[in-house]
Amino acid sequence: MSKEIGITTRKEENFSDWYTQVVLKSQLADYASVKGAIVVRPYGYAIWEKIKEFIDKRIKATGHMNAYFPALIPEGLLKRESSHFAGFTPEVFWVTRSGEKEVGEKLALRPTSETIAYDSYAKWIRSWRDLPLLLNFWNSVFRAEIKSTKPFMRTTEFLWQEGHTVHATEDDAEKEVMAILEIYQELIEELLAIPILTGKKTDKEKFVGASHTITLEAMMPDGKALQMGTSHNLGQNFSKPFEIRFVGQDGQEHFAWQTSWGVSWRLIGGIIMVHGDDKGLLLPPLIAPIQAVLIPIYYNEKDERRVRDVVEPLAKAMMDSEILLHIDDRTEYTPGWKFNEWELKGVPLRIELGPRDVEKNQAIIVRRDTGEKIVVSQEELVTKTQDLLQIIQRDLLNKAKAKLETMTKTVRDYDEFKETVKKRGGFLRACWCNRKECEEAVKNETGADIRVMPLKTEESFAPCIYCGQQNTVVAYFASAY
Amino acid sequence: MSKEIGITTRKEENFSDWYTQVVLKSQLADYASVKGAIVVRPYGYAIWEKIKEFIDKRIKATGHMNAYFPALIPEGLLKRESSHFAGFTPEVFWVTRSGEKEVGEKLALRPTSETIAYDSYAKWIRSWRDLPLLLNFWNSVFRAEIKSTKPFMRTTEFLWQEGHTVHATEDDAEKEVMAILEIYQELIEELLAIPILTGKKTDKEKFVGASHTITLEAMMPDGKALQMGTSHNLGQNFSKPFEIRFVGQDGQEHFAWQTSWGVSWRLIGGIIMVHGDDKGLLLPPLIAPIQAVLIPIYYNEKDERRVRDVVEPLAKAMMDSEILLHIDDRTEYTPGWKFNEWELKGVPLRIELGPRDVEKNQAIIVRRDTGEKIVVSQEELVTKTQDLLQIIQRDLLNKAKAKLETMTKTVRDYDEFKETVKKRGGFLRACWCNRKECEEAVKNETGADIRVMPLKTEESFAPCIYCGQQNTVVAYFASAY
Repeated sequence: MSKEIGITTRKEENFSDWYTQVVLKSQLADYASVKGAIVVRPYGYAIWEKIKEFIDKRIKATGHMNAYFPALIPEGLLKRESSHFAGFTPEVFWVTRSGEKEVGEKLALRPTSETIAYDSYAKWIRSWRDLPLLLNFWNSVFRAEIKSTKPFMRTTEFLWQEGHTVHATEDDAEKEVMAILEIYQELIEELLAIPILTGKKTDKEKFVGASHTITLEAMMPDGKALQMGTSHNLGQNFSKPFEIRFVGQDGQEHFAWQTSWGVSWRLIGGIIMVHGDDKGLLLPPLIAPIQAVLIPIYYNEKDERRVRDVVEPLAKAMMDSEILLHIDDRTEYTPGWKFNEWELKGVPLRIELGPRDVEKNQAIIVRRDTGEKIVVSQEELVTKTQDLLQIIQRDLLNKAKAKLETMTKTVRDYDEFKETVKKRGGFLRACWCNRKECEEAVKNETGADIRVMPLKTEESFAPCIYCGQQNTVVAYFASAY
Repeated sequence: MSKEIGITTRKEENFSDWYTQVVLKSQLADYASVKGAIVVRPYGYAIWEKIKEFIDKRIKATGHMNAYFPALIPEGLLKRESSHFAGFTPEVFWVTRSGEKEVGEKLALRPTSETIAYDSYAKWIRSWRDLPLLLNFWNSVFRAEIKSTKPFMRTTEFLWQEGHTVHATEDDAEKEVMAILEIYQELIEELLAIPILTGKKTDKEKFVGASHTITLEAMMPDGKALQMGTSHNLGQNFSKPFEIRFVGQDGQEHFAWQTSWGVSWRLIGGIIMVHGDDKGLLLPPLIAPIQAVLIPIYYNEKDERRVRDVVEPLAKAMMDSEILLHIDDRTEYTPGWKFNEWELKGVPLRIELGPRDVEKNQAIIVRRDTGEKIVVSQEELVTKTQDLLQIIQRDLLNKAKAKLETMTKTVRDYDEFKETVKKRGGFLRACWCNRKECEEAVKNETGADIRVMPLKTEESFAPCIYCGQQNTVVAYFASAY
């Protein structure tokens, strides 16, 4: 593989450049001609489709349905919940013209859909019979980014899902927030093989307009945290300004209780960062569009026939067993070129089968994660492939878990805190007095903020990392994407 | 069902009002607070998901993959193919500001993605090895509509799919255009049960930038044609300005050949118009999110237990047989209320099961299309339901075909032509001299344009309907949505 095609930077050497190279060269995405935007290419989109499929199935199984709301939101509507508007306004794109004419009221490109959705919800909800309303939208949102673009991580437009539910009681809303957390957690840990910390955001860091926000936070190899998803309890903060009221079984009118929650294609950024290596992308089998690539090897027509005769029934047996197999029988590239390409694309297993393997009734399986070569009889190819896919899935999660552990440090002392943030980043488990002043001071002085406060309260073990006050809670600090 | 909830206009009386009532009251969609936009509610979105699923599966089986391109297109890019730009510019929404600042170059909200996609294609395609490139995008597009909104038919934003393919030869591109036509035709006739005319658009009516356009045209009950989908052969019209070139197997550089094609949620509008009746929506079984609704009937606890004991295993058997069944066991509504609601929502079959049916080991099936009640034994409920779904699907198509036939009229005389357009609309099969002047004159004088020229050339049977010239071809005229 030529230098131009392969990854030319080591992951440990220049993480940012390595990341960009992996994204572009494995053809997950490309830059677009619009500043700050990316094009998601078929290979990247296929990963997004697998994420979608998992979430869609899970939320439908729990009574949610999909809907579609317009991308354009009139300014007046976006302004109705004031802290929400203030939070988003610096990064809103505004449509001011259509054709040659000025539009009347300015139209915002949705930065998120709370306002436009809840305007409709208020019309649809009349009685307790209409609750719960459990909707989800698959769409894209727009946020004018000032900082430089990072594909999948920071782009002016990104694909996501946003769930927006309405409930009769505060308790039902909180149950929804936690039920969604569980779905996200399963997706991220079991499919993406990325270990996470889950818990609450502080008041400073919660979603603008939420009562509280539950977050899922992962740690990237460069020491920065990545927020993988959030589930917000909105309380009655939107139902009041948007007048979402219902007549309860008690015959009285009540304001409804709401939640919203979302994950975006940023998850793909997390997969790349956590699992990728110097050869390129490395996909956990459960999220890989192609789990195994079969490369028939031959250099003359006689061999081609012999190899193909063996490959075809084997491939059929694998696909019948629901292995996502791709047969690369392109004649315009050499086997060596193909090996490199599929390694770059992070396909978990490569299966080689040439004339010698035909003779010996065998095939060669190569693990993308370890490089290990395994010779198997053709009879056991299907079961061995299935086993190896499971093993790789497990090994990737375990490796990531071990890494997360080494990157999480309990600190009691502010000097140590500052040095750790500066030198290696990672999660800093520290005690905090619960006051915004200290949270802000730490952020200003070190760049690290509180990513998450564990759901299961951990016992306080020290005075506040900043002010030294005694009455504290445990919080996980980190600098973040 | 109260008057407010049910449909209050007859389809034949006031078609436009009837249509809007069906859309709103069956909860397919609602108006949004943005002028010209709609919210697609879960029931409407579920139909769109079924359309998506069919197309997605079919295009993937033929080697296409999905991708995502940004919604914002810089003005310069949109302008690169001049006739394309001229065609779309009156209805383009422009983003001119982000946050408090002016953006540099104005950004168009995509009216369609040819320009932004082909800018990337030019970077990706180098050699014949990169061809064909077969991509599809599921997204929404934006067109500032001057006329009044009609849900699913005329909205400022709509969901669609747009396929954009690149080929090495003109012949390959034309084969793609026709292969897509076949997929669309199967979707529309076999799933949506809507008969269509297929064929070419005239040069005047073809897509701006296309060499030629293949169209699928349906006839609505009010005598107006509805374009259900299009498949464009773009020739080299875009590959030249966008410089999509490849080195062929001959070692020479060539401009590529391209196609684009799409269907939108407008298909849902067609379903409503063609099949709906005075009771509301009527969904062909193959596109219905719910194919049968089972309504257990009881008025006391003892009966409830007896009925439920029978309903549960029956429901399981139906779902195991892949019937899309919904059990409506809400206690807050009466059976009569439920009957009306599900009729309004167009569910093809209703199954009633009460204490008397338990005694007699039977169930009652009611056809939505004919109102016919069929008493079946519980043993044959699954097979009978499956049979009836097939029968309804077939009957709806046949009924629509008969209607299309009565609404298609062969005319030789211009006075008769004018009168027919004015009095009842429909397709007018007439002969035309192939000159734009006559096409335009007919349009100006009658409002009817040429919707389609049959693919299989029909023998000319008269002089030009407008100018009387002898050398003519057969064309289908109609006024249209």
